[in-house]
Amino acid sequence: MAPPSHCHTFNGGAPLPPQNGAISVETPATQCARMLDAEEFRRQGHQVVDFIADYLAGLGEYPVHPSVTPGFLRRQLPADAPSRPEPDAFAAALRDVRDLILPGLTHWQSPRHFAHFPASSSTVGALGEALAAGINVVPFTWAASPAATELEMVVVDWLGKALHLPESLLFAGGGGGTILGTSCEAILCALVAARDRKLAEIGGKRIGDLVVYGSDQTHFAFRKAARIAGIQRDHCREIPTYRDDMFALSPAELRAAMQADVDEGLVPLFLCATVGTTQTTAVDPIRELCAVAAPHGVWIHVDAAYAGSALVCPEFRDVIAGAEAVDSFSMNAHKWLLANNDCCAMWVKTPSALVSALGTEQEYILKDAAADGHDVVDYKDWSTTLTRRFRALKLWLVLRCYGVEGLREHVRSHVRMAAAFEGMVRADARFELVTPMRFALVCFRLRSPEKYGGEKTVNELNRRLLEEVNTSSSGPYMSSGKVGGVYMLRCAVGSTLTEERHVREAWKVVQDRATSLLRKMEIIYSVLG
Amino acid sequence: MAPPSHCHTFNGGAPLPPQNGAISVETPATQCARMLDAEEFRRQGHQVVDFIADYLAGLGEYPVHPSVTPGFLRRQLPADAPSRPEPDAFAAALRDVRDLILPGLTHWQSPRHFAHFPASSSTVGALGEALAAGINVVPFTWAASPAATELEMVVVDWLGKALHLPESLLFAGGGGGTILGTSCEAILCALVAARDRKLAEIGGKRIGDLVVYGSDQTHFAFRKAARIAGIQRDHCREIPTYRDDMFALSPAELRAAMQADVDEGLVPLFLCATVGTTQTTAVDPIRELCAVAAPHGVWIHVDAAYAGSALVCPEFRDVIAGAEAVDSFSMNAHKWLLANNDCCAMWVKTPSALVSALGTEQEYILKDAAADGHDVVDYKDWSTTLTRRFRALKLWLVLRCYGVEGLREHVRSHVRMAAAFEGMVRADARFELVTPMRFALVCFRLRSPEKYGGEKTVNELNRRLLEEVNTSSSGPYMSSGKVGGVYMLRCAVGSTLTEERHVREAWKVVQDRATSLLRKMEIIYSVLG
Repeated sequence: MAPPSHCHTFNGGAPLPPQNGAISVETPATQCARMLDAEEFRRQGHQVVDFIADYLAGLGEYPVHPSVTPGFLRRQLPADAPSRPEPDAFAAALRDVRDLILPGLTHWQSPRHFAHFPASSSTVGALGEALAAGINVVPFTWAASPAATELEMVVVDWLGKALHLPESLLFAGGGGGTILGTSCEAILCALVAARDRKLAEIGGKRIGDLVVYGSDQTHFAFRKAARIAGIQRDHCREIPTYRDDMFALSPAELRAAMQADVDEGLVPLFLCATVGTTQTTAVDPIRELCAVAAPHGVWIHVDAAYAGSALVCPEFRDVIAGAEAVDSFSMNAHKWLLANNDCCAMWVKTPSALVSALGTEQEYILKDAAADGHDVVDYKDWSTTLTRRFRALKLWLVLRCYGVEGLREHVRSHVRMAAAFEGMVRADARFELVTPMRFALVCFRLRSPEKYGGEKTVNELNRRLLEEVNTSSSGPYMSSGKVGGVYMLRCAVGSTLTEERHVREAWKVVQDRATSLLRKMEIIYSVLG
Repeated sequence: MAPPSHCHTFNGGAPLPPQNGAISVETPATQCARMLDAEEFRRQGHQVVDFIADYLAGLGEYPVHPSVTPGFLRRQLPADAPSRPEPDAFAAALRDVRDLILPGLTHWQSPRHFAHFPASSSTVGALGEALAAGINVVPFTWAASPAATELEMVVVDWLGKALHLPESLLFAGGGGGTILGTSCEAILCALVAARDRKLAEIGGKRIGDLVVYGSDQTHFAFRKAARIAGIQRDHCREIPTYRDDMFALSPAELRAAMQADVDEGLVPLFLCATVGTTQTTAVDPIRELCAVAAPHGVWIHVDAAYAGSALVCPEFRDVIAGAEAVDSFSMNAHKWLLANNDCCAMWVKTPSALVSALGTEQEYILKDAAADGHDVVDYKDWSTTLTRRFRALKLWLVLRCYGVEGLREHVRSHVRMAAAFEGMVRADARFELVTPMRFALVCFRLRSPEKYGGEKTVNELNRRLLEEVNTSSSGPYMSSGKVGGVYMLRCAVGSTLTEERHVREAWKVVQDRATSLLRKMEIIYSVLG
C-alpha cells in the first residue's frame, strides 16, 4: 500500500513537534495506519487462527500443569523491549508463544483440568472475543455505541430468562442486568449501591457501623469487596457452617448474628448468599435467609458464580427458590457456560440504586440528541469502571449458536461425568465422599485406617495424594479444600474438552497413587510398629 | 468426528442426574466437547478473520456515529434466546452482526473518529486478544499459569522503561507493575492501599476523617474510586483550576486546601495528579505537588490514562519530571498505544501495600511446591478482582512487533496531524484555540462577533456547531468540553487509521458548517436588529 502522493508535501503550516532524528519522511502517517491495515490483519489473523486450532488439537498432550520453577520465563526474556522489531516479528513471536510460553502455562482448557472451577471455553465464545477485539468499540454510554448497549440489554434478559431468574431482575420486569468482568466486581457494585442507599438514610458518618454477612464458605471475593467498600474489617461476619447442613448458611445463625449486631447499635447492611460455594458447592437457602434479612432492611445478593450456569437446566431450578426477594444476583458465564473470560452477568432489582452510587454526569460526555427524553441506559453508571469491552457480543453469539438446549446438554454432560466419578469413589471402600455431589464437583478423600492415627494424619495423607496425582505429567490436575477441619480433594468436571474417558483415566491415576501411598504407609507402620 | 464407541455404554454405575427428556443418547459428552473442536475452530475462525478484515477495509465508509434512536436494535431482536440454534447459526449470526449491529455502532476505529480519546487498535493488539481468548487461561496466581504471570512481570517492566518511568516503580527497582482493565481500577487499587495503610496508623474508625485531592479537571474515575472506597462524598476536594495556568493543579492551592483540612482535624490521604487531563490535556506539576503532599504522608498517584502513551517519546519526558516521588502511576495502553481494549498498566513503589489491602490466603488456592520459598507474585492480590485475563500476551506482542521506535512513530504521527489541525484553526480568524495544543488534542471554538452577545451565546453557537459537524454522515465525529465556563470543541487525533487527509477533510467540514451557521446568525441578527 503506497502512501498517497500528498503525504510528503502536506504540512498545513503548523508548528512541528520536537524531532530527534527518528522521525522523517519515511514514516508518514500512512505507515502508522498500516498497523491496522485490513490485508495485513487478514494475513496475520489466519496465522493466529491456525495457531489456536493447532493448540486445541494438541492440548491433550500437554501436562495440565507445567513443572517449572519461579523465574523460568523471566530469565529467558530480554530485560528491555526491542527498539525496532526483528524481521517478520509476528511469526517469530508466535514461535516464542509456542516454544516458551505454552510449555509454561497451566492449561485450563485441557480435558484433564479438574482443578478450581472451569473456565469454559468454546469456539463461539473465543471467536466472539476476537470479533469484539477487532471491532474495538467502547460502549460506556449508549451514544458511545448504541448497538453495543442495546445488545447487552437484550442478552442479559435472554440469559436471565434462560436461567429462570425472577422477572423482577430483568429489564422486562423493571430491573435490569449488565455484563461485568468478574463476580468480584458484581459483589462490589451491589455492596456499594446498598451502602450508599443505607447511608442516605442513616447519615454518611455511620459507615463504621455497617455490618455485612456471609458464611465461612462465602468466596473471598465477598471479603475483598467489603474491604474495598470501606466496611470495617471486623464487621464482616463469617457465620460458621457444618457438615451436617452440607455447609449451607443457617438462617437461625444468621438471625442470631444480626440481632446481636443490632443490640450492639450496629447496622446490618448486606447479605451475600451463595448458590454453589467454591469448596463444596453448598447452596444457601435463599427463601429462608431472605425472611431473616429483609426485616432488617438488608440488601440481599446471590453469588452463583459457578452454579448459576446450571440454572439453564430446569432440574436445578429449585436451588434458587425464593429468589424473588433478592436485590441482586450474579453468575460467571465464563465459568461453565462457554462464554470465555471474562463474562460475569449481574442483575439488580433497582437499577437506580446502582446509578446513584456509581453514576456521573460530565460535560465532556457526548449526549446524543436521539437519546433525549428516552430512558437510555449508560452502562458506565452500572459498574466500578467507565471503559468497558463489548462483552455482550460474545454472550449473544454463544446463546444464539448453541441455543438454550445446547447449553443444557453441555451442563448435563458434565453433571453426568461427575456423577460417574462419584460412583467410582463410592465403589472403592478406601475412599469416602466429603459431601454428596451437587452440580459437577466431587469432594472426596482417602479414609485412613484407624491405626494410622487421627484427623491430622488423614489430612497429610490426602495432601500427599493430591501432590502425587498432580505431578503425574499425563494425569489429571485437581485441587484441594478444607472444610470443618477436613482436607479433601476436589474434582471439578467442566472443561469443554473433557470426555468420559478422561474422567475414568483420572480416577485410575487417583487409585494407583493411593495404592502406592497406602503401601508405603503400611511399610512405615509395620517398621515403626 | 464420530463419538468413540465407548460413549454409549459408559456409565460407571453412578446415579444419573434428573432428566427431562431433552437429554438422551444422541447428546453424549463428545457432542459437547465439539463446542471446542479444533477443526470447527479453524473453519469458523477463518470466517471471523475475514469478517474483521472486511470491516476494517470498509470502515471509512460508515458514518462514525449512527443515526439511530433508542430501542432501534432491541425492537429487532427476539425477546428470548433460541431453544435450538438455526441451521448454520454462526454464519447467520455474522450476517446479523453485519446488517443489524455494525450499522448501529459508533465506530471508534474510524479514521474520522476524533471524539473522546482514542481506543487505538492494531492488528497485533486485536490478534493478541484473540490469542488470549483462544488459550483462555486464568492467571490469578503464579501456579494458576506460571508463564502468564511471568510474562506480565516482564512486560510491565519493558513498558515502564519504554515510558521512562522512574526505576523505583519497576520490579527491577523494588516496585512493580500489573495490567488491569481500566484507570478506574488502577486509581481504586491505589486508593484502597493508601487508605488501609493510613488507617493502620490512625485506626479504622477514622475512615470518615480521610480527605482526597484532585483538581476540577481530574477525571471522574477519581471521584468514582473515592466513593467506592467509602471516602465521604464531601471529602473529595476538587481544587479549581484556571485558564491562565492551562488548567493545571496549583501547588499553592493544594497546600492551602490540605492545611485547611488539617486545621479541621481531618486527615489528608491521597492526591490524584493528572498528566493529560481529559478536557484539555493539562499537566499537573508533579514535582511541586509532591513537595506539598509528601510532608502530610499523602499517597501520590499519577493518572496518565491518555498521555502516558506519549512518554515513549523522549521529547515528552519532561511532563513527568519529579515522578521519583510518586507512589503509583497508571496509563491506558489501550488508549494510544495500540493495545486494544482493555489494557491499563499500573505501577506501584510498594507492592506490599497493595497486597496487604487486597490480598488473601485460602485453602482452596493451589499452592505450588515449586513456588515455595520463592518470591512469587500472585496477581490476584494486586487488584480488585481475582479472575483476570491474560492481557500481558497482547501487550508483549505489541511491544515485540512494533518496537519502541514504532510506537514513537505512531504517537508522533498523531501529534503531527493534530499540530496541522491546530495550524488550520489558527489560520482562520473566526476561530480561537481554548488552550495551546499538547499531545494530540486540539481544543477550539468559534469566536462570536461581539454584537451577538456574551459567553452564553458563544457557547450555544459552538454547541450547535458541534451538533452540525457530528450529524454530517461522511464527516468527522468530535466531542465537547467546558472549562472555566467556556464551551469548546475537542478534536482528538488518535485513531490508528487516521491519515492527514482525514484531518484536512475534518477541518473543511468544521469550516463549512461554521460558515453556514454564521450566515444564519447574521440573518437573524439583521432581522431582529
